[in-house]
Amino acid sequence: MEKKICITFSFVGTAYCGYQVQKNGVSVQETLGAAAKELFGFPCDITGCSRTDSGVHARAFVATIARRGEDVLPTEIPISHVPRALNAHLPRDIAVKKAKWVSSAFHARYDAKAKEYEYLFYDGKERDPFFEGRAFAVRPISAASLAAMREAARQFVGTHDFSAFCAASPDKEEKNKTRTVRYAELRRKGDMISFRVAADGFLYHMVRIMAGTLFAVAAGKIDPADIAAVLESKDRARAGMTAPAEGLYLNKVFY
Amino acid sequence: MEKKICITFSFVGTAYCGYQVQKNGVSVQETLGAAAKELFGFPCDITGCSRTDSGVHARAFVATIARRGEDVLPTEIPISHVPRALNAHLPRDIAVKKAKWVSSAFHARYDAKAKEYEYLFYDGKERDPFFEGRAFAVRPISAASLAAMREAARQFVGTHDFSAFCAASPDKEEKNKTRTVRYAELRRKGDMISFRVAADGFLYHMVRIMAGTLFAVAAGKIDPADIAAVLESKDRARAGMTAPAEGLYLNKVFY
Repeated sequence: MEKKICITFSFVGTAYCGYQVQKNGVSVQETLGAAAKELFGFPCDITGCSRTDSGVHARAFVATIARRGEDVLPTEIPISHVPRALNAHLPRDIAVKKAKWVSSAFHARYDAKAKEYEYLFYDGKERDPFFEGRAFAVRPISAASLAAMREAARQFVGTHDFSAFCAASPDKEEKNKTRTVRYAELRRKGDMISFRVAADGFLYHMVRIMAGTLFAVAAGKIDPADIAAVLESKDRARAGMTAPAEGLYLNKVFY
Repeated sequence: MEKKICITFSFVGTAYCGYQVQKNGVSVQETLGAAAKELFGFPCDITGCSRTDSGVHARAFVATIARRGEDVLPTEIPISHVPRALNAHLPRDIAVKKAKWVSSAFHARYDAKAKEYEYLFYDGKERDPFFEGRAFAVRPISAASLAAMREAARQFVGTHDFSAFCAASPDKEEKNKTRTVRYAELRRKGDMISFRVAADGFLYHMVRIMAGTLFAVAAGKIDPADIAAVLESKDRARAGMTAPAEGLYLNKVFY
């Protein structure tokens, strides 16, 4: 069977221009590509599960590694050694957690059945240096405002046209804006509010616009009862702002 | 009443040569001093509760601010504005959380009745980029090893001569090496093991040597039943290594 390697890795996105190779700045993809070339001895194609923005983090990003232009990875290195061996060539803000063989036909992005993202709001009175660049710092959110955010988030769940929660993509525009959100939950833990959302797919900036909309709900600028109407309108201008990238984490990919 | 300002602040210690002003590298103390000078308009003395090592972090460090050479701080700035106003002059890895007026007689270090430190061991199979520089990465620790660490930690509790858990200080040597440990607890949370220890005072490197000793216990190099004998020996060579600074957090100061 023709095979390539599939890795699961986490990264702190602060120093990167995003996952995908860009003209400006260093991407996670090219950093992984350089490490793979060092380890396997030839140029590799790294195919990721998602194109995350500059500054976005990942706890379990998935990507495949194959020899450039082919869909196979010829190597004698035992698969169980691959995470540590790749990590030896990676900077400290990227870490491969797991590696396994997958068939050449597998595609990290197109075969994903669902993904879970998490968005962190930090609402402590003063900033927290340990969450610098790792959460969106907002004014204190009351219990009533959190309840309103929850009411709003519940309306994201289900199958909807998310045009109102989608920015114009720098890549080719997706025509079908309908996605199915499995869950959208808010939890407070100390001064941190976590918004976890899973869907069969996400449009460009979708989670960040959802988070920005919840932020507007907390600030009393959007009525949580209006979320259904915002979805219905398909009007980006009716949703909230695009919340900063630094609060966003790709948590999990389901295949 | 003669008064000065007492602040509580947190910092990520990675970029600093420690709390106290040193010949080499930037210290937290001088960074705070520069911010205080900017805010209050004159040079200030910053007196901290502790002298933490290079790379050590703090969640609630305490320090007083007074005009240089005096024990008073003349200012019209309302005390409730001080945290945010100081933060405006501080880098993102230091954040003032609280400020209050204290009497000129108050001393952040000598008046501390007890302190709590926390030491973080990360024992995930592969490294975690989110804890880079913020925990001591160790090999996976079994439930049995954790139980042994707990047994060892229990023996730190109480009043003991901690000479075996003390490094030669770069400052003046403290003659009395007897300290009272109030609690010494280990808790696992996912891939992280937290060691929290509170005492009426800590000798130079004491928590890091305690952590290094627990690490040696986990590795089977020190028998947990021998900790009492190690204390008794007053011999630094019988305790474990000095665990890396990056795992250490000053959590709380009790007055």
